[in-house]
Amino acid sequence: MTGLTYRATGVDPTRAETSLAQVRERIARTKRPEVIGDIGAFGGLFASPGADRVLVATTDGVGTKLEVARLLDRHEVVGTDLVHHCVNDALAMGAEPLFFLDYFSTSRIEPAVFARVVGAMADACAAHGCALLGGETAEMPGMYGPGTYDIAGFLVGVVARDAILRPSDVREGDACIGLVSNGLHTNGYTLARAIAARVAGAQGRDLKDALMTPHPGLEGRTLGDALLAPHTSYLTQFRALRASTHVRSIAHLTGGGWEGNLPRALPFGLGAVIDRGAWEVPPIFRVLAEMGTVPEVDQWDTWNMGIGLVVIVPESDVAAALRVVPGAVAIGRVVAERGPRRVRWE
Amino acid sequence: MTGLTYRATGVDPTRAETSLAQVRERIARTKRPEVIGDIGAFGGLFASPGADRVLVATTDGVGTKLEVARLLDRHEVVGTDLVHHCVNDALAMGAEPLFFLDYFSTSRIEPAVFARVVGAMADACAAHGCALLGGETAEMPGMYGPGTYDIAGFLVGVVARDAILRPSDVREGDACIGLVSNGLHTNGYTLARAIAARVAGAQGRDLKDALMTPHPGLEGRTLGDALLAPHTSYLTQFRALRASTHVRSIAHLTGGGWEGNLPRALPFGLGAVIDRGAWEVPPIFRVLAEMGTVPEVDQWDTWNMGIGLVVIVPESDVAAALRVVPGAVAIGRVVAERGPRRVRWE
Repeated sequence: MTGLTYRATGVDPTRAETSLAQVRERIARTKRPEVIGDIGAFGGLFASPGADRVLVATTDGVGTKLEVARLLDRHEVVGTDLVHHCVNDALAMGAEPLFFLDYFSTSRIEPAVFARVVGAMADACAAHGCALLGGETAEMPGMYGPGTYDIAGFLVGVVARDAILRPSDVREGDACIGLVSNGLHTNGYTLARAIAARVAGAQGRDLKDALMTPHPGLEGRTLGDALLAPHTSYLTQFRALRASTHVRSIAHLTGGGWEGNLPRALPFGLGAVIDRGAWEVPPIFRVLAEMGTVPEVDQWDTWNMGIGLVVIVPESDVAAALRVVPGAVAIGRVVAERGPRRVRWE
Repeated sequence: MTGLTYRATGVDPTRAETSLAQVRERIARTKRPEVIGDIGAFGGLFASPGADRVLVATTDGVGTKLEVARLLDRHEVVGTDLVHHCVNDALAMGAEPLFFLDYFSTSRIEPAVFARVVGAMADACAAHGCALLGGETAEMPGMYGPGTYDIAGFLVGVVARDAILRPSDVREGDACIGLVSNGLHTNGYTLARAIAARVAGAQGRDLKDALMTPHPGLEGRTLGDALLAPHTSYLTQFRALRASTHVRSIAHLTGGGWEGNLPRALPFGLGAVIDRGAWEVPPIFRVLAEMGTVPEVDQWDTWNMGIGLVVIVPESDVAAALRVVPGAVAIGRVVAERGPRRVRWE
């Protein structure tokens, strides 16, 4: 019997090292003054903020947008998405990002793909002043289909204790300000993919072909391009709003859509009435809904429908909010609501 | 055409909620005084340590031990493993655990399996005084095979600035203290599974059957039991050593075995000479090596071979180290070494 080795079974520990070497410089550019030491230790070191501050920790994935990115060879976008998703979750608590770690797992590391994904994470971290402090790369032969991989991100941010956003600060009559999204961000892709696959099948085409064909409903863009718009980061807008208005709370519209997220920014007993005519739903949602004949309620319970972040401010701050964030929209108001569904439409 | 919905495509956002509800109490028991607020927010809140302290962040997975656990319906162990792996990485930097977050992804959440895995994480966190501060549960139909799932853990710990363990503090002549392991911990499972599968195949049996049969080389235990021993946490031993000796640095022997990890605790120019006769290699390693005719070098470059943690202390502290940690072994010493391989055997 031939001797078995780790490499013979498909795991090559040097492959992760080699892949990482390709992005080391881009990771180094994310360094902040608080970072101590270098990559290679068993953990990343980061000088603690003071005891008057609060750490905010969040973890996210990007769902099956991974599959669309892989099919169209557009791996960078999911790296960017992962960081932006985490940044938005942190700012929804009132926090600024400090550092980020990633988990990348696959059956067999493709160094070029790894470098594109993690390189994009590094660039997104650098753009947000967030240190990429560490990561884990796992090769698990047989766990993932050929070429598929999963990624998870972990971000720690910081907020002054009196600046934590708390749903309990929201008052009836407060205003909901919507910050526009450029598409699905990272949620509802399983539904989007099922719709695209069904339409492609009905036309006798394969999914990739369907995704790469310009679509009249998308002003000539392809479905793939529309689906691979990066998750918007709202850090700049968040800072502008904090500087000029009294931000009460924030909802990041991700998995579960409106009903799954907006109530998380509201205290018990309050809901929101949203004017769906206040902004233009981006064409990608209309195209998907029509192609899949998706019931209205499922669209809004799955996708963000064009608003990625809902910021709740006092009614008196609406004008200031709209002034400091170009493109922001006054979309509704906070009302008393004790029913099982807390988002109503008008 | 029938309308498509998120649920029809296999994703049910309420399934994650229902699953989480089953373990909410066990998660609540991990709460520390620094934790602010409750589950459900967009990020977990944790009061910052003082500015004289340093945060240590680490991320890990458990590799294809997942597949063994799943095959034998022993899901708890991988939850425990994930926390212990992260705790050990943090203490290798000198840190005590503060909080933990998990990522759980699968094609379709099985609430009972989810509760067993995440419940075990919660219990392990509680046992280590570490808050389970948040997590992400992802349903990605088609990404994972039926019943398979992946998990990643993120842990943040804390260390006083002057207590950070630094390889640069290690001196030639320092002693290596080995803390024994109970098996593979979470590394080298792809090789172990390949060996078991080959032997099972040669005997005309399926893998599960082979894993569940008592093995004479394992004192009558089954291969499955030996492979599913939980990753040892060394936090108690770490504290005892810190209290009674001058710990210079620590290596956590994980992926890459001895050569892949021990040098990470040493400065450039130094290596270690290890006496492989100083401890008894646990039977599981001997059985696997024999069954797979694994070359000696590959065994030591893949598995921990019975030592999970190597703690480097001054020679004068060896007696104290062995006294405060029952079962610890003096396994070698630090020597000058400039070759490409920095662990030598005697």
